[in-house]
Amino acid sequence: MMEKITDLKTRLKKIATLESILEFLEWDQQVNLPKGSIGMRSIQMSAMTEIIHRENTADSMGALLETLAEAAGDFSVDDKVVFEDAQIKYNRLKRIPESFASRKAESQSESYQKWTEARKAGDFMMFAPYLKEHIELCKEEAAYVGSHESAYEYMIDHFDRGMDIETIDALFRPLASELSTLLRALMEKQPTDKVPVLKGFPLEPQKAFLTQVITAIGFDFDHGRIDESLHPFCLGKGQDIRMTTRFFEDNPVDSLYSSIHETGHALYEQGLPVEEFGNALGSYAGMAAHESQSRLWENQVGRSEVFWRFWEKRYRALFPTAMAGISLDQWMLEILKIKCIPIRVDSDEVTYNLHIFIRYELEKALFDGSLPVEDLPGAWNDLYEKYLGIRPRNDSEGVLQDVHWSGGAFGYFPSYTLGNIMSAQLWDSLNQTHPGIEDEIANGQYGTILNWLRCNIHAHGRRYTTQELVRVATGQTLSEKPLLNYLKTKYFGFYGIE
Amino acid sequence: MMEKITDLKTRLKKIATLESILEFLEWDQQVNLPKGSIGMRSIQMSAMTEIIHRENTADSMGALLETLAEAAGDFSVDDKVVFEDAQIKYNRLKRIPESFASRKAESQSESYQKWTEARKAGDFMMFAPYLKEHIELCKEEAAYVGSHESAYEYMIDHFDRGMDIETIDALFRPLASELSTLLRALMEKQPTDKVPVLKGFPLEPQKAFLTQVITAIGFDFDHGRIDESLHPFCLGKGQDIRMTTRFFEDNPVDSLYSSIHETGHALYEQGLPVEEFGNALGSYAGMAAHESQSRLWENQVGRSEVFWRFWEKRYRALFPTAMAGISLDQWMLEILKIKCIPIRVDSDEVTYNLHIFIRYELEKALFDGSLPVEDLPGAWNDLYEKYLGIRPRNDSEGVLQDVHWSGGAFGYFPSYTLGNIMSAQLWDSLNQTHPGIEDEIANGQYGTILNWLRCNIHAHGRRYTTQELVRVATGQTLSEKPLLNYLKTKYFGFYGIE
Repeated sequence: MMEKITDLKTRLKKIATLESILEFLEWDQQVNLPKGSIGMRSIQMSAMTEIIHRENTADSMGALLETLAEAAGDFSVDDKVVFEDAQIKYNRLKRIPESFASRKAESQSESYQKWTEARKAGDFMMFAPYLKEHIELCKEEAAYVGSHESAYEYMIDHFDRGMDIETIDALFRPLASELSTLLRALMEKQPTDKVPVLKGFPLEPQKAFLTQVITAIGFDFDHGRIDESLHPFCLGKGQDIRMTTRFFEDNPVDSLYSSIHETGHALYEQGLPVEEFGNALGSYAGMAAHESQSRLWENQVGRSEVFWRFWEKRYRALFPTAMAGISLDQWMLEILKIKCIPIRVDSDEVTYNLHIFIRYELEKALFDGSLPVEDLPGAWNDLYEKYLGIRPRNDSEGVLQDVHWSGGAFGYFPSYTLGNIMSAQLWDSLNQTHPGIEDEIANGQYGTILNWLRCNIHAHGRRYTTQELVRVATGQTLSEKPLLNYLKTKYFGFYGIE
Repeated sequence: MMEKITDLKTRLKKIATLESILEFLEWDQQVNLPKGSIGMRSIQMSAMTEIIHRENTADSMGALLETLAEAAGDFSVDDKVVFEDAQIKYNRLKRIPESFASRKAESQSESYQKWTEARKAGDFMMFAPYLKEHIELCKEEAAYVGSHESAYEYMIDHFDRGMDIETIDALFRPLASELSTLLRALMEKQPTDKVPVLKGFPLEPQKAFLTQVITAIGFDFDHGRIDESLHPFCLGKGQDIRMTTRFFEDNPVDSLYSSIHETGHALYEQGLPVEEFGNALGSYAGMAAHESQSRLWENQVGRSEVFWRFWEKRYRALFPTAMAGISLDQWMLEILKIKCIPIRVDSDEVTYNLHIFIRYELEKALFDGSLPVEDLPGAWNDLYEKYLGIRPRNDSEGVLQDVHWSGGAFGYFPSYTLGNIMSAQLWDSLNQTHPGIEDEIANGQYGTILNWLRCNIHAHGRRYTTQELVRVATGQTLSEKPLLNYLKTKYFGFYGIE
């Protein structure tokens, strides 16, 4: 049976290798692809997708899993993890008819196109029929797979195995309520007139600084790259991680923090057990866990005064002119300012989770039928008014702002806030174990942090669900309280609120 | 039966798509790959190679070809071309046992490694056993396929279908003999003391100039890119061509002409009928035809006085300091200087074909058994003395200089000179049809040339063998005389020899 598990791992590694090629084609499309080559690239990606699907659903894979199932009682813990993860994936893909899969793919491509047009026109109703169709398609898929009563929970499970509405509700509702209170307090005290105006940060020193920072954090340039693209992302698997950023002369903060964020994702991938590449032991735990890594580096580490205690003089040396009139206090205000604005990706540590909460509430309502698609923009705007005190001026800066729904990626949004929740819990544990972390950050040293994450998160691969992983790493159940405490302490402290 | 041909074309297109992904992984390896990611890349490339082999040799492909074979008598000319090309490829791959293919691949990888070590050490005997093994492997493969009496002709045919030793001998022998005479005459007259010393050509203007030139020539940046790599190359298919170059401050000529050369390859690929991508109608005719395109642009167009009549003032404007003391005559001498040196890739239009002739003669002797592998370095050096009047000081600058044999690519070298022969014939025809070509080049216009090549070479895909293609394009049989005339006229003219 040992041999059969090795067979399975070999198969899974091969599939993951093919998937890594597909990711790589995606990377190149965003970074290098000549504009006329998009048709060729689509054909390449379709061919790879078809081959990956064939490998995933091969009869021989089914037969192997069946043979293994008979011996499942005798498996080691590790082998059980590998087997069960493979079985879940196989069953899901096998139960979805090919005709449905291609219908869904076509719909996604058309829907994405319509979403870009609708967003440009600021007209939700252009996109509404496609959104409706995507909800129906998700329900149809969930019915084929038959693993969940609720189609929305089926979707959530796809991003974070084992996560459910009850758990998320119990975390998000008190979080949203307390964040609203916190937000009001902060908005009253924020000295907005002292936020500096940033301009004239030359791009070459920005790139040089970025490289210094992400190298210091631990990104392994021998097994990865950073390039430029329209939107920052991190792709790639195993030994070859490709992340991207973008540079603006008048907004050096965007590039820096999005890159620290992507580096967090990259470090997770670079820290997974390479010898288990392709199977559950060598895969990330879920999207929430992934996001916990990027957020921890971006927010807990990067958006801190101790972080700048080390980097300030280096930064000023690279940008003597642009930084001339800006004090450290002003600089920190730029990095920690709270913004009640309609766009999620431009928001801040505090309001970000409210943006997510709104989307989560709406997704649930769309799926349980209590919110008709036609009423979505109104409901969206009402919730923005309720939680952020603002009303989007149009659908482009409202309900049409995110790409996710255009591809039917419902149930993805919660992972962002689950990641934030988790990052705060990890940060607490890390600081309890290593009380000198802040001093290390102030000295530009990140090895203890990375090592702790390597041992307590990365090394586990997909052995655990998100909830289990948090318990294993921190000894605590998943809870919104550490995130609230972290935000209160940090922002009350910074704004001098008692 | 129409439908079956469409099925075949669809299959071939899919295979070509997968092959294009493999080429693309190769491009990335040379241009972008982090140094620690090579292991991952090898696994990716092996996975793709395996899948491509599976698609190429699928039983369903065999069955389709068998069905088609029954109706072959009724095929249109085009369908016959597509079918026969597919059949040849299928039969070849099907007859080679998988165990042999993997043995060969392993041997190639080990041999390449040993070749790099041997070249570094300057010790041919370190590499000799691998060379011997590769010759045996080629003979074994030729025996499996059974399409040719001679294993060397089997190899040649792989690069240029239908080409044989008799044809090449009849071209190369008089060519080598006359080139030797020409070379002696030129070496006597060459004013080597007037060759300028080039230095201090900044890289940015080099890149800018290069972009101007290859854009003017017709490279379509909407369907391709140029990047940097250690050695220049051109990869990619159909709608996405990736070529590379390299830049040296003290050698702007290397980058410029290697890029014009690669642009010639790129224009051929970009000119193939895109709707026939993957089948013989949309593929290049052979390596000789490919090389004829790169050489024509590099040599007949680029290495000419009329070419610089247009570009000189632009070049001087970009490099005012570096070009200050260099007259146009001196500059042309730099570009047209004849070099009796041991390294093929650093040679010139005249001696290049002697470098190839030497390799061709040695390959024949290695395959017919008249030259034992152990005697190769001596035979190599003797031929260099005979044809170029120099004796390599060691194996590194002698028999170990080229990568080809390390991978068992015997029969490839002749394509280079066949390409040169062909380019001169095409150039004659082109100038007979369009007597104003030189004036157009002098005005920086290349549309007539490109259009002629599009119609007379590119549009034909792989309808014809190399010999047939030359006849169709020029009305002449393949002949070394136009190349000799071209070289004599050009170099006698430039050196003032009557």
